[in-house]
Amino acid sequence: MSDCDFGLIGLAVMGENLALNVESRGYKVAVYNRTTEKVDALIEGRAAGKNFVGCHSIEDFVKAVKRPRKLMMLVKAGPAVDAIIDQLIPLCEEGDIIIDGGNTYYVDTERRTKKVEDAGLLFVGTGVSGGEEGALKGPSMMPGGSKDAWPHIKEMFQAISAKVGPNNDIPCCEWVGPRGAGHYVKMVHNGIEYGDMQLICEAYQLLKELGGLNNDEMYDVFDKWNQGELQSYLIEISRDIFSAKDDQGGDGYLVDKILDVAGAKGTGKWMSQLALDLGVPSTLVTTAVFARGLSAQKEARVRASKILNGPAEGSNAAMAEGAKALIGDREQFIEAVRKALYASKIVSYAQGFVQLQAASAEHDWNLDYGQSALLWRGGCIIRAQFLDRIKEAFDAEPNLENLLLYPYFEQALEAAQEGWRAVVAAASLLGIPVPAFSTALNYYDGYRLERLPANLLQAQRDYFGAHTYKRVDKEGTFHSEWLDLRKQPNA
Amino acid sequence: MSDCDFGLIGLAVMGENLALNVESRGYKVAVYNRTTEKVDALIEGRAAGKNFVGCHSIEDFVKAVKRPRKLMMLVKAGPAVDAIIDQLIPLCEEGDIIIDGGNTYYVDTERRTKKVEDAGLLFVGTGVSGGEEGALKGPSMMPGGSKDAWPHIKEMFQAISAKVGPNNDIPCCEWVGPRGAGHYVKMVHNGIEYGDMQLICEAYQLLKELGGLNNDEMYDVFDKWNQGELQSYLIEISRDIFSAKDDQGGDGYLVDKILDVAGAKGTGKWMSQLALDLGVPSTLVTTAVFARGLSAQKEARVRASKILNGPAEGSNAAMAEGAKALIGDREQFIEAVRKALYASKIVSYAQGFVQLQAASAEHDWNLDYGQSALLWRGGCIIRAQFLDRIKEAFDAEPNLENLLLYPYFEQALEAAQEGWRAVVAAASLLGIPVPAFSTALNYYDGYRLERLPANLLQAQRDYFGAHTYKRVDKEGTFHSEWLDLRKQPNA
Repeated sequence: MSDCDFGLIGLAVMGENLALNVESRGYKVAVYNRTTEKVDALIEGRAAGKNFVGCHSIEDFVKAVKRPRKLMMLVKAGPAVDAIIDQLIPLCEEGDIIIDGGNTYYVDTERRTKKVEDAGLLFVGTGVSGGEEGALKGPSMMPGGSKDAWPHIKEMFQAISAKVGPNNDIPCCEWVGPRGAGHYVKMVHNGIEYGDMQLICEAYQLLKELGGLNNDEMYDVFDKWNQGELQSYLIEISRDIFSAKDDQGGDGYLVDKILDVAGAKGTGKWMSQLALDLGVPSTLVTTAVFARGLSAQKEARVRASKILNGPAEGSNAAMAEGAKALIGDREQFIEAVRKALYASKIVSYAQGFVQLQAASAEHDWNLDYGQSALLWRGGCIIRAQFLDRIKEAFDAEPNLENLLLYPYFEQALEAAQEGWRAVVAAASLLGIPVPAFSTALNYYDGYRLERLPANLLQAQRDYFGAHTYKRVDKEGTFHSEWLDLRKQPNA
Repeated sequence: MSDCDFGLIGLAVMGENLALNVESRGYKVAVYNRTTEKVDALIEGRAAGKNFVGCHSIEDFVKAVKRPRKLMMLVKAGPAVDAIIDQLIPLCEEGDIIIDGGNTYYVDTERRTKKVEDAGLLFVGTGVSGGEEGALKGPSMMPGGSKDAWPHIKEMFQAISAKVGPNNDIPCCEWVGPRGAGHYVKMVHNGIEYGDMQLICEAYQLLKELGGLNNDEMYDVFDKWNQGELQSYLIEISRDIFSAKDDQGGDGYLVDKILDVAGAKGTGKWMSQLALDLGVPSTLVTTAVFARGLSAQKEARVRASKILNGPAEGSNAAMAEGAKALIGDREQFIEAVRKALYASKIVSYAQGFVQLQAASAEHDWNLDYGQSALLWRGGCIIRAQFLDRIKEAFDAEPNLENLLLYPYFEQALEAAQEGWRAVVAAASLLGIPVPAFSTALNYYDGYRLERLPANLLQAQRDYFGAHTYKRVDKEGTFHSEWLDLRKQPNA
């Protein structure tokens, strides 16, 4: 009876696909779902003739799996996870492993690891990325939690995960770190995904509005981009999207029929809020989250579009001339947009890794940054050749403080910056919003400045609130009597 | 014995000054501090000969005040406030009023209002802004909490607060709303302050680096700005800062000796995190918080400044020419920076009020937005003539969805946008970071666009995660089989 190698709870699409993936690697899989019709539907449907055991109660489910049990849930993050843990704990036996594969907030995983370990069991919170297709064919997996669980799940997890490398044999699954480390790394993955998507949208808007490209031309541009530095899953699917015709019987392309209101599920928001707590400027993900928020104000924007004007054409000859010169000819403009996208993407990843470093230091996770890059190399939404360069950078310099400083990226930014600057300048002059391109450029220009204007800000804080300041030429903390030092107005 | 009109706990500078302010309006004031030496120092020092009662125990302190007691604490926000509330509750009697004047997170005030009311007492969480000088001479005050407390404290609070208006008789203190509403409004005040300060710093950097202005010239520019649309306390003190000579015996100006590392105490971060929760794009405050974070990475920036290059001079003649044309002559450039600052400030305040509206709706606070503008009109750090226009806007249209749409501001932005765009473009081309000017412009350009590129983003989300989308031409929620719709690569 107890001969299943693995148990999976939660048979929505991701759970079903992951269970099928595990079974396809030679494992026998028990499945359970609170709504038991889903169990029957799977067993009689996609799992028919396969090595599955469908269970109608959680007790039967636990009994069906060999010890030490590997029981994974793929359910909605939040209270449902706690409820299932509470049900599983009394049914499990020492050494059994409870695994949460949802998009869980890492703080919950920190808490649950302790709770499950206190009950004599092991807990794993694992990021799983790759969407439905990834779950079925090979996702990127980022497990963290009870380290003792890893030897028991390593072979299976690496078997089902995506593979990369010249021989397609390097699994995109390695142990990330203790407690909530796996879910934190997954959250940063998602935040970077927010940034990538927003950057691609800005490139699209520029090519459409300033470059005048139609969807066919957009397909060709993205197809070409996907063969170079920008090669990635998100560029590839964007290309494909530009080729899809309306599937509702209308004329033209589907992308033009889609409402410009972006949804969000919260991981980008979490990363932004945690960056604010850590004091690290992860401006790309935050800008991307806010851009989705602004897109959601569709009705307000429609009203505003009738009231607020853009730059008046011909109002300033020098400005119009300047913008025209910046854009150049069509091919030059496309190439400048590509450079802006690539440079901004480098900044976005650099910020993500700075945040990982700060979080790892705060939580004592001892993260391996090059390995994180490798985990994202295949299977997941942000998979890209580009991540090999990041892995190389951290292999060469494990304590690299910022990816921007690694020669490969420093040179890439050097090569890209002229086009990047021209695109941001032209968009600013011509009224096209490029919040993520802009924030990336501002981060680059701020990060490389020895002297920022924060001296004035500290002077203000000391003036009105006696917050004190430090000096460039002396040790110590200072406060000045500004009212006495100032020139008397009109004196 | 019990003849004091008011009691104040916490004799740091803010508390001492506020107590002196209350006493100066004809009230008898009891004071208490855990470290009782501070009580004696005040009574024998600044309060000597004044109508004060110094108390060495919290029991004596409570007894010293007339019923219904008005007992206000000005202590560090956090557990200390809870500890004092726990001490006060058993000593107080029905109808007594406990007041927290610290920079408290509004969620704590929501919780404490309930707790204190459940004990049969009244609770007020009030924002107090104006720094040390404001506390002494007349702060801006933003009280919220138990509405029944207001009739008892109104006269005293309005007496000690700043006054504005042609006859200097409109108090910058009105009841804000239930529970945490007062502290939320104070937090948004502080967040707007973050934005104002960052914007001024960017103007300063541009005038210094691109305009070549020295501190004397900067003084003159800010003095002139302070007589126009930008008139405000922060412009005024910035002007004064530029005139202050080194007070540590060195040559030159003090502002040049101050380390460019900005500190922060958390309210800007809270406002940013709450904007993310509400889904409203308050990009100015967040950008300002991140800019402080980047400034704090001073050592990293010094290292990076030796590695990362800015735009190469003369590398692109058209770009260099374009940037030069954008800057114009010295006077044109200064005026363009002024316009960029003013327009960005309008956007910042617009975002702040959108956040207040969203928070008010979520918490059922029924905030009066014009009144909030009036509370900030005097006494506080962001005081400015400009706030009269905001009050006018909400008086004219109480449900105004965004200040940008009010004719006065719409026209101000129209008048400012050419200079604003030129400054952002020139800074982007020339490598000067202007994160807040940029994010304000990007918000303006995004908000006034009927069509953003979020259609592509929703297509991506539906492609890889089946997140569905809406259409522009049909009701309903759609999902497409993108893999089947796409053109086969190289087909």
